Amino acid sequence: MEWLLTPGPVQLHPKALEALSRPQLHHRTEPARALFLEARSLLKRAFGTEGEVLVLTGSGTLAMEALAQNLFAPGERVLVPVYGKFSERFYEIALAAGLRAERLDLPYGRVPRPEDVAQRGFQGLLLVHSETSTGALVDLPALARAFKEANPEGLVGADMVTSLLVREVALEAYGVDAAVSGSQKGLMCPPGLGFVALSPRALERLKPRGYYLDLARELKAQREGESAWTPAINLVGAVKAVLEAVMPHLEAHLALKAWQNALLYQVGEALGLRPVPEVKSPAVAAFYLPEGVPYGAVKEAFARRNAVIAGGQGPLKGRIFRLSLMGAYDRYEALGVAALFREALADILPAS
Amino acid sequence: MEWLLTPGPVQLHPKALEALSRPQLHHRTEPARALFLEARSLLKRAFGTEGEVLVLTGSGTLAMEALAQNLFAPGERVLVPVYGKFSERFYEIALAAGLRAERLDLPYGRVPRPEDVAQRGFQGLLLVHSETSTGALVDLPALARAFKEANPEGLVGADMVTSLLVREVALEAYGVDAAVSGSQKGLMCPPGLGFVALSPRALERLKPRGYYLDLARELKAQREGESAWTPAINLVGAVKAVLEAVMPHLEAHLALKAWQNALLYQVGEALGLRPVPEVKSPAVAAFYLPEGVPYGAVKEAFARRNAVIAGGQGPLKGRIFRLSLMGAYDRYEALGVAALFREALADILPAS
Repeated sequence: MEWLLTPGPVQLHPKALEALSRPQLHHRTEPARALFLEARSLLKRAFGTEGEVLVLTGSGTLAMEALAQNLFAPGERVLVPVYGKFSERFYEIALAAGLRAERLDLPYGRVPRPEDVAQRGFQGLLLVHSETSTGALVDLPALARAFKEANPEGLVGADMVTSLLVREVALEAYGVDAAVSGSQKGLMCPPGLGFVALSPRALERLKPRGYYLDLARELKAQREGESAWTPAINLVGAVKAVLEAVMPHLEAHLALKAWQNALLYQVGEALGLRPVPEVKSPAVAAFYLPEGVPYGAVKEAFARRNAVIAGGQGPLKGRIFRLSLMGAYDRYEALGVAALFREALADILPAS
Repeated sequence: MEWLLTPGPVQLHPKALEALSRPQLHHRTEPARALFLEARSLLKRAFGTEGEVLVLTGSGTLAMEALAQNLFAPGERVLVPVYGKFSERFYEIALAAGLRAERLDLPYGRVPRPEDVAQRGFQGLLLVHSETSTGALVDLPALARAFKEANPEGLVGADMVTSLLVREVALEAYGVDAAVSGSQKGLMCPPGLGFVALSPRALERLKPRGYYLDLARELKAQREGESAWTPAINLVGAVKAVLEAVMPHLEAHLALKAWQNALLYQVGEALGLRPVPEVKSPAVAAFYLPEGVPYGAVKEAFARRNAVIAGGQGPLKGRIFRLSLMGAYDRYEALGVAALFREALADILPAS
């Protein structure tokens, strides 16, 4: 088999493939409405919110833009800590949405501290929960609390692209007002859907704008099991099928994902590799390249074993490599990957 | 079988289903790059342009918004004839993009004449080629010519959502500068991809804005076989597979689609039904409901035969019904549908 070890898209869940092999469903029919409502209801549980989850046809980036555009009005001040490629993107999106975005730069791999975001005078805080580019996980509840103590009226938006279904998440319990994710990460489906989760507080504070990204319009349609625009309904079917399989065993699933990622770090650290993140996310294991070894050599060593891995992004390009078991891999496949990882690195590292 | 007779989503092409049953491909790998470039090259031939076709993850509506936002600057004057639900949407999108849009209202079912659009003082004209809501087809080349005689610097944007691969289209030959379509109509794939075709003239005149919809950024990435944001690569594979099957026999395919739709009109008119459009598009057959018959009764008569049809939209809601063989149906399936159509209407119409 081909080992897809990239942090998204990932190895597909068998239920996703099964759903995608069915004949086309028309989105304005009762079976499609029922499917859409069921998918949204399962997504609400997955995000841990009593609010709403909107399903958008597009990538996670589209969902990030929808969040920024609908939660804040042009000219509002938002704080955006930048500690990786995706938090950098959140900053760019905030600017493109006409917000007065202030970036707070940290070295890639580090995570912001509560005291960093405890600054007055902001309407919003935008955070990436699991920074896929560095493998770092931020302490969302602590950061949201610190920000809201300084800005009681402020709203917290979070990118949960690689935390949803990979570790525990919960909007209201975390003090997060809105969050986004996508179909091609922890959900183990193909790319093509973005999700925007809105807490009850965010629902009251929506400032919709745009056309395709007008979330008030989506909300009205999706409450009826419809969508404002033609949805990628086949993918919605895949998402529903995977959530039906995973949600009844969520705790065990998250424990497996945590164990798998810890295994990758164990193997890498035993080989003398240095982890990139200060605090590790279970979505991806990121290591600095061994001294003097170019990324291409590591990539090739994995490719010879039919495995696809990921390199660095932004300032980490050519400096790190990343492996992920976020996809539909079980315990034994993970052990196989651990062996593959050791063998691949043996091609590269001098025998000691 | 279930007969999906809606004008999109449609019955899937077997090559699309086959492509969607494959394991996940990562979009930043050589096989994915080759697939993406091949799909774009086939789409260029399908749109009939020497320019570029950009593949966006989203619906056709997203592609319409991308066209309006990137072809025109805020404040520019665009003329938008409104003769159905989708031309109405083009008008709304132009307004949302900050353009000074002027609507030219025609009764639903009619089509604009060259003299209607021969008005000076506009930077752009937005037209829907095949108005899926009414079944009407406009004469794009004649309209583009008349508009450009009055506005030599003007740009013409066209919605080819239900004309691409259903009837002949050609950007430059028609005087059309940019056009959009989607995966779930003539392409016989699931929904989830929008396309923006840009003629060489449009490429020189791009005024990119937005983030997810910034076409300059997409252009740079897609020329390398990448995309700015994670693409629905599985669907790109489906689109490529269908185009590889259809393009070598395009003429025969378009002749089949024309014959099939003419057959639906023949059957309907023989039953005494009155067609909605002034000029018929081959994408869909639209009929006024028989006197005193509610849409629900027609829908039910088809549903009893396992067929899904479409009703009216906007002012035509409750007044018409629509059937389409745009999907992957061959000659014999169309003959079967003709029989189904006759039987369904026999349930409703009084025996004469």
